[in-house]
Order: sequence, then C-alpha cells, then structure tokens
Amino acid sequence: MTEPTYDVVAIGNAIVDVLSQSDDAFLASAAMTKGSMQLMFSPEEADALYAKMGPGIEASGGSAANTVAGIAAMGGKCGFIGQVANDELGDIFAHDIRAVGIDFTTAAREGDPTTARCLIFVTPDGQRTMNTFLGASQFLPEAALDRDLIANAAILYLEGYLWDPEEPRQAMRAAIDIARAAGRKVAFTLSDTFCISRHGGDFRQLMADGLIDIMFANEAEITALMETSDFDAAVAAAAAEVPMLVVTRSEHGAIAVTGGETVHVPAEPIERVVDTTGAGDLFAAGFLRGQAQGKDVAASLKMGAVCAAEIISHYGARAQVDLKALVESKLA
Amino acid sequence: MTEPTYDVVAIGNAIVDVLSQSDDAFLASAAMTKGSMQLMFSPEEADALYAKMGPGIEASGGSAANTVAGIAAMGGKCGFIGQVANDELGDIFAHDIRAVGIDFTTAAREGDPTTARCLIFVTPDGQRTMNTFLGASQFLPEAALDRDLIANAAILYLEGYLWDPEEPRQAMRAAIDIARAAGRKVAFTLSDTFCISRHGGDFRQLMADGLIDIMFANEAEITALMETSDFDAAVAAAAAEVPMLVVTRSEHGAIAVTGGETVHVPAEPIERVVDTTGAGDLFAAGFLRGQAQGKDVAASLKMGAVCAAEIISHYGARAQVDLKALVESKLA
Repeated sequence: MTEPTYDVVAIGNAIVDVLSQSDDAFLASAAMTKGSMQLMFSPEEADALYAKMGPGIEASGGSAANTVAGIAAMGGKCGFIGQVANDELGDIFAHDIRAVGIDFTTAAREGDPTTARCLIFVTPDGQRTMNTFLGASQFLPEAALDRDLIANAAILYLEGYLWDPEEPRQAMRAAIDIARAAGRKVAFTLSDTFCISRHGGDFRQLMADGLIDIMFANEAEITALMETSDFDAAVAAAAAEVPMLVVTRSEHGAIAVTGGETVHVPAEPIERVVDTTGAGDLFAAGFLRGQAQGKDVAASLKMGAVCAAEIISHYGARAQVDLKALVESKLA
Repeated sequence: MTEPTYDVVAIGNAIVDVLSQSDDAFLASAAMTKGSMQLMFSPEEADALYAKMGPGIEASGGSAANTVAGIAAMGGKCGFIGQVANDELGDIFAHDIRAVGIDFTTAAREGDPTTARCLIFVTPDGQRTMNTFLGASQFLPEAALDRDLIANAAILYLEGYLWDPEEPRQAMRAAIDIARAAGRKVAFTLSDTFCISRHGGDFRQLMADGLIDIMFANEAEITALMETSDFDAAVAAAAAEVPMLVVTRSEHGAIAVTGGETVHVPAEPIERVVDTTGAGDLFAAGFLRGQAQGKDVAASLKMGAVCAAEIISHYGARAQVDLKALVESKLA
C-alpha cells in the first residue's frame, strides 16, 4: 500500500444551484416539504417550477462537490468525479471546481439532458428547500471512474443523493471496491431523509458489510436510517456498525462517535443564518480536512463547525472567505 | 399625448455577470484598470480569462437591466429591450428580469455568439473591475424595438455601454425618435470613461441636440465627457445642456442639477462595502423611481442613495432585500 497522493476523492452529483428568496406560503402552495430535497424528473417540470421562482443567483453546488471544494479551499488535495453535460452550466460547474485546485476529469456528456440544476428556495429563517433536476448527473457511468485517482486518495467520499439513479449507484459500488482494494477509507453522507426512505436498506447493508469507515448524518437522517425515533438509540445502533459516526445537530453542534467514545462540539456562534444550503457539506469538509491533517476528533469537529458557520452566513454552498485562514484563526 | 402606462423602458446589454473575488496583484498581472469595464472581443479571449478566474457566482446583470430591475422591485412598471442568445445564460437573464415583473419581449437570437457575460473581479476594497464579452447583446437590431412599449413609457432609459456595437447604437437612436415623438423623456447613463473616450463626441451631440432629458454620470465620467479635470466646471457645462444632471460621487453622495439649482444628498452609511457592482445602476433606479412617483429632487436623490447602499453591501447587482420596504423605511 503506497502513500495516498490525494486527501479526498468525491463522487457526487455535478449540479449548478439556482438560489432564490422565498417564503413559507410559496412552499405550501407548491406542496414542498421545507428543508428537504425533491427530485424533478423532466426538463418540463424543472422549467415550470423555475418560471414560478423569483430572481435567482447561480452558484456551483452538489453535496459532495461542495465538500471537496471546502477541503481544497483549506489546502487539501482533492479530486471529483461527476457528470456534467457539454453546456454552459456544465462549463460553470467545471470551472468552479477546477478553480479551487480540484482534479476534475470526468468528460462532459454530449446531447440531452442538460447539466443538473437545483432550484433552491431560501426562506427568511435561512432554511433551504431544494428541487433537483438531475439531468446529465444521473448518467455517470462506471467507465468514467478514474481508478488511479480513487486508489490514490486517502478517503473516497460518496453522497447518498447519487444513490437514486442506477448508473452512478453502480459506479459508486465499483468505486468502493477500488478504494478498499487499495486500502483506503470510504466515507458516506446520508444526504436526506427522503433519500433514506428510498435506499435505507442499501445503506444499512453497506454498513453491515463493513464498507463504510466514516458515516455523516444529521439528526433526522440517523433516526430515519436506524428506523427509530429515539436519537440516542439511533446513534448507538449506527455507531456499532461504523468505525466513525459523525452526526450534525444544527444549532446544537455535532457529535462524533468512535471507539466507544462520543465527542461533542457546540455550534459556532453566528450573527444571522442567511442560507443553510451546504451546511452539512461544509461540516464534512472541515471534519475530513482535520482528519487528513491528523488532528484529533475534537479538533476535526471544531473545524467542521467553523466551516458550517461560514457557509450559512451567506447565499450559496461554496466559501466566500479564505476558509484556510478562518479555520486556522479559530483553532489558534 | 396619452398617459404613459410604463414608468421606464430601458434598452441595454443583456448580460449575465460572473463575480469572483480577486486581488490587486491579479488585476495588475492581467493589465486591468481597476474599476473600469473592458471589452473582450472573442469567445476565446473570454474563455482564457475565465480559466484564470477563481470560483464564481452568476447573477443577471447589465447596467440598464439592473436599473429597471431595481425600479420594478420598488413597484414601478418597467420594460426592457436587449438581446440574449437562445442558450442557458439567456434563459437565466430572461427569467430573472421577468421574475421581477418586467416586460421583456426581445426574442432570443439563434446560433452563435452566446449570451453576453461579464467577468467581474471584486477586490477586497469592494471595487469591481469588469471584462465583458458582449456576445449576442451587440446584435440587438432596430427591428427588435417594441415601438408601442417605448411610446408608452414615461422615460426611455439608455446605457452608454450599448453605444459600442453598431446595431444597438442605431436601435437606440431610433428609440430616442420614438420616445420624443410620443412626448416622453429620455434618460441616459454615461456608463464608463473608456466608453466616453470612444463615443464622447456622440454623447455631447445628443445633449446639444436636446435629445437627453436626464443625464446620469459619476465624477470621472462627467469630467471625461466635458473634457476638463475641473469637476465643478464639468458639472456646470453639462448642466447647461440637459434639463436634469445627476452625478454620483461614491462616498461623497450625489448631486442633481436642474433649473440652475444644485441639490446634494450624502451617501447612506453602510457597514462594509462588499461589491460596488451595480452601485450607479441602482442609484439611477432609486432616483428614477422617485421621479416617477412625483417626489422632489432631494427625495429622489435619497432614494438613489438608499438603493446604492443596499447593492454594495453584497455580491451582485440585483437587490437581495425588499427594496420597496427598505426605501419606504428610509424616507419615513
């Protein structure tokens, strides 16, 4: 087993976010579940919802992509695997992820559908409600995997969202095999409770098979996954299945459970929650960056909390400050 | 002469902005003049500069488009005429301007070039330095003018930037004729000193011919236009040529000169200048909205100052708050 040359390689949806301010009445009228991610299955459905949306701003997104963008912004060496189309939004996604120094070599896909977009309605409380048209993203084939990249990364990071479409699901299973054969760790984020309602069985099986080294979840996700409304019971049950369990708890901070011990970090104080888009993604970024730097669990959690606080203080899920300097100042 | 059904109809570049954080060293290395707007003449030139740019966020822009978006956000009835291509950025531009209730009926142009984009480098002092690929925007033909729309708007608002390409310049000359024949006012913004260096003669002739009712400029633009380094002399000379002259002076506020009188408004206090993109555009929005509502010059200037202060407190040139409520609270 050679030394890894990358800290983290992620496989995820390659999405451009469209963020717009909204209110609870609109969410209700459109039958959206606040805070969730719903899939839109046709371009027509996406266009119809976009037509009802207020003026927006566009920013590269995608859960796992946000995470590696955060790690790279802190100085980590990362790769990303995800499918865009050969169109303007695909160019934007590719530009933004490469501009932070990430290796992104997945070739753009010709023809329809377009690059994935996520219509994000941000309410005055800062909550984000997402409607995703997966477009090209759902056609990531196993053949697109850069096997050397995966084998040379200390951690392979996978997002649950991408478990929905069949081709990427197969690609992620193959990627897990590549990573484990190379002696690397596999990290997984549960993404969303609706996602768990569709694929919880698969996710539990991955854990039972010992294929997940680090599992990321929030409170709603971990209880959904372990099929209990008792948070402590869910954490205990999940922690028995993975070497490292990280659970974010919004304003209550986050915990990590490893080796029978639970470590807690409080949430970072912030002035105002503007937009929670990417909070979990950036928490994972901070935590994984800390782990890659050999920091202890408490320090890694703190790094996660600092990154999450930065991202929810503005619109969009990519950092708007020097994340490396920010984290260093908070750990000093 | 019938009562106008629109407050303002604008003709301008239909641009999507790409905003990224930068620093003075980058501007120097790329030989950019800080605070200016430079044109990029080929897609290759635009792609090459984009490749050097950091991660960005995209937001609809275009100087006159930003102005009518601001007026509409305050409850004004507006139209916009500008050329996009039939592509994803064109869809974004059209969506954002319609989403604030503006009539935008210019048909998207098929084929190359793409919709205009403006690469905006924002330095830590909040200054913005722009590089624009005009793309489809420079092919706005006179035939695309909605003559009824123009004839039914109290004010026709034109941006100097669009004077560069030939077809839109002819279209704007025709639009001035339509507006004046219908007894409407014509407002014009000088846009940029480089723009004046190319077309100052045309702009002075428009004024001398009595075709401009309201002229917007900043300090650098008014001195460049009147070919003197003496600000007071420039203002006096320009004010002799137009019924209303509005000059913004950054942190020193703004003045309006009309009927031999000069009215001054101080700049609104703000916590931190994040990004000055759109400051002049939104000042014009506030001022024109005030005039449309029959407010006096001082109140109109105040509205301009409030709108400008909002826009420079965040990235992008479209309002992120309820501009109508904000202005009402500041005038109360």
